[in-house]
Amino acid sequence: MNTIDKAPIEFYFDFSSPYGYFGSCRIDDIGQRHGREVIWRPYLMGAAMKLSGAKPLVERELICDYAHRDIPRSARRFGIPFNPPPPPFPLASIAACRVFYWLCDGDPAQARDFARRTYAALFVDGRNISEVDVVVDLASAAGANADDTRSALGDQAVKDRLRQETDGAIARGIFGSPYVIVDGEPFWGNDRLDEVDKWLETGGW
Amino acid sequence: MNTIDKAPIEFYFDFSSPYGYFGSCRIDDIGQRHGREVIWRPYLMGAAMKLSGAKPLVERELICDYAHRDIPRSARRFGIPFNPPPPPFPLASIAACRVFYWLCDGDPAQARDFARRTYAALFVDGRNISEVDVVVDLASAAGANADDTRSALGDQAVKDRLRQETDGAIARGIFGSPYVIVDGEPFWGNDRLDEVDKWLETGGW
Repeated sequence: MNTIDKAPIEFYFDFSSPYGYFGSCRIDDIGQRHGREVIWRPYLMGAAMKLSGAKPLVERELICDYAHRDIPRSARRFGIPFNPPPPPFPLASIAACRVFYWLCDGDPAQARDFARRTYAALFVDGRNISEVDVVVDLASAAGANADDTRSALGDQAVKDRLRQETDGAIARGIFGSPYVIVDGEPFWGNDRLDEVDKWLETGGW
Repeated sequence: MNTIDKAPIEFYFDFSSPYGYFGSCRIDDIGQRHGREVIWRPYLMGAAMKLSGAKPLVERELICDYAHRDIPRSARRFGIPFNPPPPPFPLASIAACRVFYWLCDGDPAQARDFARRTYAALFVDGRNISEVDVVVDLASAAGANADDTRSALGDQAVKDRLRQETDGAIARGIFGSPYVIVDGEPFWGNDRLDEVDKWLETGGW
């Protein structure tokens, strides 16, 4: 697989987004099929939602009911393990995001392992990933030292790193989860990943 | 084609919605492929958007930029003629909706012809379909008498008919365009029509 000349797929997501979770279970296969590296880029979608005028799904009448039906249906369609998370939901993903980038700057594969564990913790096991103890536990499972993880969570440089990532995402016009950019083309939503696949296959339209 | 035992596909849309227009160009083929009648049901999406807390795309930073890119790209993907409509946009579709139901109660096929002409007028020819004269002209092209159309537009029964349709749509939880219901399953968005097709093919999941 020659990935030297091809731009990577950038995969933006928020850890509290079920559609982001579904995308995370599918995007690497799409990358592999087309010889593209996939860069995982969690960010704080809430900051973008303020700008885009969107409210969380659970606060939006009608759409909320639809989402409650569509989310498990989407999981079934793609054969992805899913259990509706218990309250509180949606929840703050800031600790998980900080740990992700702290790990990523050392070893992107380890960060991705952590991200997968975090999504499964929330959307399969129903754990509260907004809690520092849970995030430290998940980082440990991915091979990180627990004390180092706790230190990183309080490190100003790590906080700044996430802020830059989120500001950068918003500056690029990103507002959803998942949100994919490939060859300069943006695609919003798990329901557009088939389109990403087709775009890469055909060279676009 | 035996459509006797199969429930129809209900196709909800707003005349000022570009994704509704794209859906209108695709839904009848899907119905035909699976031996399902398609019932076209325009409604006033703005009334539902108030409830769902959504703002029109053009008022939503970030999402607006994405939509301006995605809408023509979606048209290209599906080979649908499209020209971005000139201002004012979005526009009021109330007159077009009223004429649709007035025609529909006499001849559903004529109403559908009028709907197709209305969508093409807005999204291909750039005409202002919020204007009564334009709507009367389109109804005439679909075979209706111009004076009768003007009378219908002022008829309280016709106004009530549309109000009932819109209230009924909201009571069913409908908020978007296009929005499809088949065998009790709701599907929101032009980007879910492939899923509708697959659902009908497989019997669901």
